[in-house]
Amino acid sequence: MTAPSSPWIVDHIGIVVADIDAAIGLYAATAGTSVTHREKLLDRGVELAFLNTGGTRLELLAPLKDDTPIARFLAKHGPGLHHVCYKVDNIRAEMARLESLGAQLIDTTPRPGASGTIIAFIQPASFYGVLTELCEYTAS
Amino acid sequence: MTAPSSPWIVDHIGIVVADIDAAIGLYAATAGTSVTHREKLLDRGVELAFLNTGGTRLELLAPLKDDTPIARFLAKHGPGLHHVCYKVDNIRAEMARLESLGAQLIDTTPRPGASGTIIAFIQPASFYGVLTELCEYTAS
Repeated sequence: MTAPSSPWIVDHIGIVVADIDAAIGLYAATAGTSVTHREKLLDRGVELAFLNTGGTRLELLAPLKDDTPIARFLAKHGPGLHHVCYKVDNIRAEMARLESLGAQLIDTTPRPGASGTIIAFIQPASFYGVLTELCEYTAS
Repeated sequence: MTAPSSPWIVDHIGIVVADIDAAIGLYAATAGTSVTHREKLLDRGVELAFLNTGGTRLELLAPLKDDTPIARFLAKHGPGLHHVCYKVDNIRAEMARLESLGAQLIDTTPRPGASGTIIAFIQPASFYGVLTELCEYTAS
C-alpha cells in the first residue's frame, strides 16, 4: 500500500486534566484560547472542551466518573498529553490502509465523535507510544 | 496581566522515539509526511526531524547518547508525546507575562532553537502536565 493521496492534517491535540474549568481558565489567560465546543459524553464518562488557538485546536478531556479510560489515564499518569487526532477525507479507507500496514486499531469500525465527526483510535504501540485518532467530518 | 493580543499558534508537536529513521518511515507510510528539516544537536545529545503533515508539523526527537533529557524521558516513559510548541511574536514579552501569571520557566532567557528560532520551555507543572515550549522566528 502506498502513502495517502494527501498528508493527514492535525485536527487537535488531546490533553487530559482533572479540573476542566481550571484548565480552560489557564489556557485562556496564558495562550489566549477560547472555548468553541464543550460537551459531556455521559456514556463514556468524559467531559471535553475544544479550545481555539491561533492554529491547531486543543481538546481538554476530564473524567466524569471513575473506572473510565480517562479516569484511569489520570490515575496512572497524572494530567498531560493524551493523543493526537488527524483529519482524513475517508476514515474507512485510511483504517483499511493502516491495517494493511500492520497497525492495530482500537476501534475496528468508526464511531460518532464530537461535532458531527466519525472517529477511530489506533493503539499507541502502532505509533511509537502515541495514541492516535482519525476523524472524518461528515455532512450534516 | 491580560491574555496575549493574539492567541498562541501551535508550531509543532514533539514526539520522542528511539529510532528516528524508523519513525520517519512510519509517519511517511501512514500519514504521508515528509521531512522538512533534520539536525543533530550534539551539545544536547539529540537528533531531531521535523515532519510536514497537512497542518501542524511533528518534531521527532531521538537521543544521541545517554544521560540527556531525551534519553531519560525514553528510559522512564518509553516513546511518546513529549511537548507542544507554540509560536509567539515576542517570546521575551510572553515569558515575562507567564512569570507574572505564576508559571515556572525552565529557560529563563531564550536560547537558540532549530531553523533560526529562539525558544524557551515552561515546566509541565505550570500547564497541567504538558511540557510547553514557546518559539519566536527571528529575522535571519
